[in-house]
Amino acid sequence: MNKNNIKSAILKTIKPTADERVLLSNVADELIEKVNSTAAGQNIPDVSARLVGSAARGTWISGTHDLDIFITFPDETSREELEKFGLSIAREIAKDAEKSEEHYAEHPYINMRYRDFDVDLVPCFRVSSPGSIKSAVDRTPFHNEFIKQNISGLEDDVLLLKQLMRGGGVYGSELRTQGFSGYLTELLVIHFGSFEKVLESACNWKPNLVIDIKEHGSLKHTDPLVVIDPTDPKRNVAAALSLDNFSRFIDISRSFNQNPTEEMFFPPPAKELTDHEFIERVNLRKSAIVAVVFKTPDVVDDVLYPQLYKMEQATAALLEDYDFTVIKTGSWAGDDVVVLLELMTSTLPDVKKHVGPPVWVRAHAEMFKSKYEGADDVFSMYIEDGRYVVEIPRKYADAKKLIEGRLGMCSLGKQITASVSEGFEVVEGKEILRVKESGFRVFLRGWA
Amino acid sequence: MNKNNIKSAILKTIKPTADERVLLSNVADELIEKVNSTAAGQNIPDVSARLVGSAARGTWISGTHDLDIFITFPDETSREELEKFGLSIAREIAKDAEKSEEHYAEHPYINMRYRDFDVDLVPCFRVSSPGSIKSAVDRTPFHNEFIKQNISGLEDDVLLLKQLMRGGGVYGSELRTQGFSGYLTELLVIHFGSFEKVLESACNWKPNLVIDIKEHGSLKHTDPLVVIDPTDPKRNVAAALSLDNFSRFIDISRSFNQNPTEEMFFPPPAKELTDHEFIERVNLRKSAIVAVVFKTPDVVDDVLYPQLYKMEQATAALLEDYDFTVIKTGSWAGDDVVVLLELMTSTLPDVKKHVGPPVWVRAHAEMFKSKYEGADDVFSMYIEDGRYVVEIPRKYADAKKLIEGRLGMCSLGKQITASVSEGFEVVEGKEILRVKESGFRVFLRGWA
Repeated sequence: MNKNNIKSAILKTIKPTADERVLLSNVADELIEKVNSTAAGQNIPDVSARLVGSAARGTWISGTHDLDIFITFPDETSREELEKFGLSIAREIAKDAEKSEEHYAEHPYINMRYRDFDVDLVPCFRVSSPGSIKSAVDRTPFHNEFIKQNISGLEDDVLLLKQLMRGGGVYGSELRTQGFSGYLTELLVIHFGSFEKVLESACNWKPNLVIDIKEHGSLKHTDPLVVIDPTDPKRNVAAALSLDNFSRFIDISRSFNQNPTEEMFFPPPAKELTDHEFIERVNLRKSAIVAVVFKTPDVVDDVLYPQLYKMEQATAALLEDYDFTVIKTGSWAGDDVVVLLELMTSTLPDVKKHVGPPVWVRAHAEMFKSKYEGADDVFSMYIEDGRYVVEIPRKYADAKKLIEGRLGMCSLGKQITASVSEGFEVVEGKEILRVKESGFRVFLRGWA
Repeated sequence: MNKNNIKSAILKTIKPTADERVLLSNVADELIEKVNSTAAGQNIPDVSARLVGSAARGTWISGTHDLDIFITFPDETSREELEKFGLSIAREIAKDAEKSEEHYAEHPYINMRYRDFDVDLVPCFRVSSPGSIKSAVDRTPFHNEFIKQNISGLEDDVLLLKQLMRGGGVYGSELRTQGFSGYLTELLVIHFGSFEKVLESACNWKPNLVIDIKEHGSLKHTDPLVVIDPTDPKRNVAAALSLDNFSRFIDISRSFNQNPTEEMFFPPPAKELTDHEFIERVNLRKSAIVAVVFKTPDVVDDVLYPQLYKMEQATAALLEDYDFTVIKTGSWAGDDVVVLLELMTSTLPDVKKHVGPPVWVRAHAEMFKSKYEGADDVFSMYIEDGRYVVEIPRKYADAKKLIEGRLGMCSLGKQITASVSEGFEVVEGKEILRVKESGFRVFLRGWA
């Protein structure tokens, strides 16, 4: 199939139908009206509700039913009043929801299920310009305005780009994914002019690329991709994008240009890796796989995942410090967290070569020599490349015992430290199969 | 025992007795007379024999019966005549030897057993100054003169220093040892004033130390120790000294100053390592020991040993190139050469992580991707730190097979290449015990 046929086929799936649009519009209008009337009913003056986000911009993908309703208050409202009145209005509306939950980001907000839509009711300040925002969410109405003024005629391109990124696993700016946000996708399409022009450009992207639509950027950024916010010269919209997702998008763009397929937009869902398949892979690779398993701490993803990635690195560094060679790491979280490490080997010789100071650095050299000379457990001592070298018994010749003995001394995130200190298990090879959670097995297919 | 008692005790052993001196003197005189009369008998004019080396300087160790007799020819003699007449005179004298052998260095010379002395008969040019020497040996008479003029009263100090260096394994400037030459030892004693002052100074030596007795050095040297030849401002007498032997001597000097013992001068002879002891050590260390065994090429030590050391390095580099971790290397030569390698492990996983170019370096990245994408034997392909990474089957997962398959491609010395190409064996662990030669087993005690 050629590009145009593929694009048409994909759009048929992802572009909301007229019925869907009418429904979304009705529900949004209904909620806006409810916010306004509830505010009036509660004698809270000058409140005005707005629909923001992809629903407001016509860049939402069919089947996703997300509504972001911002409850805006005058600039001069105090923080306490905003939180109090905002929550009071939102709670009143949530009474009609199928279910609802209060969340606490910079301000409290309510997420609810309402007429089968996933609705966020978010209080914010209605400031005069993005330069005078009081909280991060205050910026959103400005983004909304900019996109609405510039996106007309490019909505399909945004839909295609979002779906291609989703298929490639690089869509979503939350800390778990570290990919492209919706707003970033929209800005790329506006800047380059179309879905395909974004991809053509991305084929030749290099890190530290700067895109500044308004040519007003006022700070130096060191991120792989820098897209200056048209509504805020200080801000990089792509700050959350990791180097690997930046690179993956380049790779995806080249693949699409060379040989576009529908599967790139909608890859077949990954299946669970069976016990048998896992054992087969381990036998084929003949490497050692070790996993640390513990209870997942009860925190939101944006707190959990950075700590998980940090733990991968800290555990790999611990192993490397003790002379193990780490091939790769991975982590997954469900009921339990599983941090995986593939090693060249999980056991090392009992002898460790410990290289000391150069012989001619007298004070250090004498200290080193007197520490080891004649010690019971020193295999041998000699001079190599001008340095004292001792061969001593290795403290941890077994990766499992090393992690068991030393993980507690690693610098881990706060909530993970707490969970690990309540107990963890180190399992190796086939023992890993005791983790049966379906999501883990799907993850394992991609990792192992 | 204090230093003085130890020195006395050692000198009692190493200082030649009056009888020994008389005997050596008589034999030397007899040989000088023979050279001179033989030259006259063969109608070779203006030849003059001289005793040089430690025997001439009173710095020879009791029990060593070495005589260096230089057959000196006038400066204007041609190289061809020198070689022809020199050899003709030496051959005549060698007729009275218990046994003799002709050697070929820069010139031919004869080594012979004569009245139980180990005698070198060496033809050289009698040049007017060290600046106008025609061959390396022409320098020796000048060394001889300088030492004789400056060594008086310091002979015992030289003997002690030589013996201490011998005990510590750092004496001898041949390419096998890369240690201190006799001349270097004498210069150190002259410069610092005594055996103990050399050691006191050496405790604080650092690499690139320059000692220039005549303050006439005219070139920059980068060796660990630079001792400018008093008879040649361009030459570093210590050029052959390796960094490790330089460092070992610092170590020996500190040990002597802290706690002098007779054993430092005369360490107990090393014993052969038995099969049982070797197996015990291997079991204790749990590392992997691999050895390459082949027939020793028939060349002099100064040719063989540099090639051996080069082979140790080349083999270790080969193993490291293929992801093995080398703990240490060693080599020994008797009837067979044995090159030893201690490894963290002699087998690796069958999977190899191969890191490719950054995704954004387009030409390289596309070439890399198309080479591996969809290839039958690629385990997986992903992006890490902005680079393509493939997991592919390891070509050599076994150290023994790697050496068997690739040693022939390593850059080895000429004679070793020839010998290896006629056949070599790679043995592992206990199999190494099939090498029974006593010298190897002694070496093994120090290495394994």
